[in-house]
Amino acid sequence: MSKTINLNADIAEGWGAYNIGNDAELMKIIKSASVACGFHAGDPNSMHRLCMLAKQEGVSVGVHPGFNDLWGFGRRRIQMRPVDLEYMVAYQIGALQAMASYAGLKVTHLKPHGALNNMSAEDEGYAMAIGRAIKTVDPKIIYVALYGSEMEKAAVRLGLPLARESFPDRLYDDDGNLSSRVNPGVVLKDPKAAAEQAVRMAGDGEIISRSGKKIKIDVHTLCVHGDEATGVAVARAIADGLAAAGIKNVPLTEMKLS
Amino acid sequence: MSKTINLNADIAEGWGAYNIGNDAELMKIIKSASVACGFHAGDPNSMHRLCMLAKQEGVSVGVHPGFNDLWGFGRRRIQMRPVDLEYMVAYQIGALQAMASYAGLKVTHLKPHGALNNMSAEDEGYAMAIGRAIKTVDPKIIYVALYGSEMEKAAVRLGLPLARESFPDRLYDDDGNLSSRVNPGVVLKDPKAAAEQAVRMAGDGEIISRSGKKIKIDVHTLCVHGDEATGVAVARAIADGLAAAGIKNVPLTEMKLS
Amino acid sequence: MSKTINLNADIAEGWGAYNIGNDAELMKIIKSASVACGFHAGDPNSMHRLCMLAKQEGVSVGVHPGFNDLWGFGRRRIQMRPVDLEYMVAYQIGALQAMASYAGLKVTHLKPHGALNNMSAEDEGYAMAIGRAIKTVDPKIIYVALYGSEMEKAAVRLGLPLARESFPDRLYDDDGNLSSRVNPGVVLKDPKAAAEQAVRMAGDGEIISRSGKKIKIDVHTLCVHGDEATGVAVARAIADGLAAAGIKNVPLTEMKLS
Amino acid sequence: MSKTINLNADIAEGWGAYNIGNDAELMKIIKSASVACGFHAGDPNSMHRLCMLAKQEGVSVGVHPGFNDLWGFGRRRIQMRPVDLEYMVAYQIGALQAMASYAGLKVTHLKPHGALNNMSAEDEGYAMAIGRAIKTVDPKIIYVALYGSEMEKAAVRLGLPLARESFPDRLYDDDGNLSSRVNPGVVLKDPKAAAEQAVRMAGDGEIISRSGKKIKIDVHTLCVHGDEATGVAVARAIADGLAAAGIKNVPLTEMKLS
Repeated sequence: MSKTINLNADIAEGWGAYNIGNDAELMKIIKSASVACGFHAGDPNSMHRLCMLAKQEGVSVGVHPGFNDLWGFGRRRIQMRPVDLEYMVAYQIGALQAMASYAGLKVTHLKPHGALNNMSAEDEGYAMAIGRAIKTVDPKIIYVALYGSEMEKAAVRLGLPLARESFPDRLYDDDGNLSSRVNPGVVLKDPKAAAEQAVRMAGDGEIISRSGKKIKIDVHTLCVHGDEATGVAVARAIADGLAAAGIKNVPLTEMKLS
Repeated sequence: MSKTINLNADIAEGWGAYNIGNDAELMKIIKSASVACGFHAGDPNSMHRLCMLAKQEGVSVGVHPGFNDLWGFGRRRIQMRPVDLEYMVAYQIGALQAMASYAGLKVTHLKPHGALNNMSAEDEGYAMAIGRAIKTVDPKIIYVALYGSEMEKAAVRLGLPLARESFPDRLYDDDGNLSSRVNPGVVLKDPKAAAEQAVRMAGDGEIISRSGKKIKIDVHTLCVHGDEATGVAVARAIADGLAAAGIKNVPLTEMKLS
Repeated sequence: MSKTINLNADIAEGWGAYNIGNDAELMKIIKSASVACGFHAGDPNSMHRLCMLAKQEGVSVGVHPGFNDLWGFGRRRIQMRPVDLEYMVAYQIGALQAMASYAGLKVTHLKPHGALNNMSAEDEGYAMAIGRAIKTVDPKIIYVALYGSEMEKAAVRLGLPLARESFPDRLYDDDGNLSSRVNPGVVLKDPKAAAEQAVRMAGDGEIISRSGKKIKIDVHTLCVHGDEATGVAVARAIADGLAAAGIKNVPLTEMKLS
Repeated sequence: MSKTINLNADIAEGWGAYNIGNDAELMKIIKSASVACGFHAGDPNSMHRLCMLAKQEGVSVGVHPGFNDLWGFGRRRIQMRPVDLEYMVAYQIGALQAMASYAGLKVTHLKPHGALNNMSAEDEGYAMAIGRAIKTVDPKIIYVALYGSEMEKAAVRLGLPLARESFPDRLYDDDGNLSSRVNPGVVLKDPKAAAEQAVRMAGDGEIISRSGKKIKIDVHTLCVHGDEATGVAVARAIADGLAAAGIKNVPLTEMKLS
């Protein structure tokens, strides 16, 4: 049986007069796009534009909800009551659903942004709040969750479709967690190294940790980035590497999920 | 055949720690609620709360989109490109649809707020932009339009369900337009006078202008207010007056529309 | 020598169409006002209005900086780099200085709001960041710091004028810290009890903890509240109790500080 | 006597994660910088950064107040009460004064941004509101006003220092007004043509209109731009052209003003 994987990226993170990232190029590489919804970045115009582009490129679209923190680009941890978070996420889902209707698309996944993603990976209350928002607004939306995180557990508990995610351009510790950015070199800027790790993740179902330990993983989607200088080149190398290894890059909606 | 009319109000216009208006009382009087969606007022929590209350009280819910202007409470005229306005309105529709799903409700009408309502009554570009947002996101949503306005024409042109609106607590000029607030006494604070005008509008299909001229009208919904000191008392008198005249107050979804 | 104390309150926390608290009444009770500056609450209009009122009532005005979180009313903890916090606080100081110039007043103190106050009480990085903002913009501004907090230490380290603060309407633990609101009854709603504690704090320099232990304190200012149902009544009782005990309530600028 | 002129530009219009324009290059060309203050663009960090750079480059700093409209980049006309505008501008002046204190600089001029500049050029109420804000917060601040505008009249009426401004990279009509952007070619993208017009404005005190008519002008400052593709090249040509013509480019504070 031929292998499949999904490449996803955070996208449409400009705002008003401002642009960021390389959406046009990235949209030719990825198969699922997580769209900023106006809280940490993005506005109705950028959401509309991205949905039209996704339609054209055959990319599935998902919500990329973030904290209500434009100045901090959603990278600052904010302590909220889970119920406040839940409604804030539900609101962002609905907003993107409306914009996706311009392209005749359904919103098919959700992946939290930045500090919200980090906190929800660790915190059951946050992870469940996001899951409940999905379940209420559209229980067919796929919850994209960092492999091994509280979000993964929440998706299972709530019976939501789940896509486990890992990062081909990041090094991992022996326990399977992402190595902290405090350590130099843990973000791979070498396209070849990232492509090799992508093939190992998607093809062999394993990671080799920084110390050399083999760790079994089972993921559905790999996250690539467009906002750093080397991001697009790394992303393209990953896509090419997967293709060369016979691993097909498909929208999340075509993956066999858990 | 027994007569029907709809009483509507703008609602859920608090935000964060702030409250405004008398939502709980007003929701027992009206049959359709236009819910602030986070741009001129309102937040996911207030939207959620209002939708749950609407479910309980048998009130239909609609979008009350406003300019992105919390400080100005959406009362300041802002010049935007119609396409920017269109997407901004679509975004707000989607946001409320998501929050309404918590109550198992559909969003069934839309009425612009404050300066956006005033500008859209006069400006074809704005009126059509709002109509296109409705048409794209959900063409079954009823466009609530000031009687005789550009919004009314836009709804007809776009084939959208249309509810024509008038104001029982406001005086009118001979040409059928609302008398400017510059003139003293044009906002009726006397519950009895407002109730009488409501019955004349809904029962007889007419207005008597400030100068005494009879004007034929054909409206589906009457707007009441909760944010002034006398608002709720006037609204209650209007509801009671209509009931006494045998005119049934029903949700917009139960009105026979144009 | 006759005893003096300062009564302060957070104030001007409405914005736009929204009001909160009882500014007019509270301004007749307190002698120093900490003014919201548009980030957690407040806008240029409310700042202007409060400064004019302060001039009239003989109340000194201070900055009440908060997180950039209108939605959360500044009550949500946000993790920022200290340098980002420092500039954000400096910005708010300057904004109030401009508005105070309408009343011919100087800004003479600073007290952080809500979650920023709580975090700065515990976190050296935050406490020092605020202190550096004061030192750069106007080193004569008095740093109002919770008794025993990191803010108190920061003020000393930076050589800033310091006013130590305690709360007459709150109960304390044996270690001199405020009893957590998790414990029932720790917020005094009984005017008499609060007035007695105020006299004990200002007149005797001591607190009796919840368990009955006497703790020596040395504070310059007592904080009262206007935003709860009982706030103004409690505040008035505190002012009256102090007056009856011969303790004079003066602006922070007239206190002999550390 | 040797001739002088001032070159100014709008600057520091990024915020948070977003950048725009070419501040570093432009700051080597201009002698006065109008700094975005967080309303239409900018944040405390960008304001701080620019002030430090201004100190280093010998550039005088001014306030560049805009509407409270980050999303629209201050380019959308907003109708406000003049008094609301006045306090909003005063707030922004104070905010920049605080940030300038980090560099040991005084804020020495003010020039409105985008739609606020356009509206204030035409509307006496807006022009006077801005003038009153300056007069209250610091009457030594120079009001930079489009030649022949309501702002120029307001500055004279209020006794404020006034710098009249023109645009070397724009064509003019016979009446001395800027030719509307509706007409093709009215924005000069040719560095040589812009430089020639700059020398004519600053050296000869005249404009040649689109139709070839000579118009006498008397301006103190020429505005250059960094936000278009050709902006910096045009700005540099203007600076070089002025130098070649023996016209010295100095901070506004060194100009002999009206």
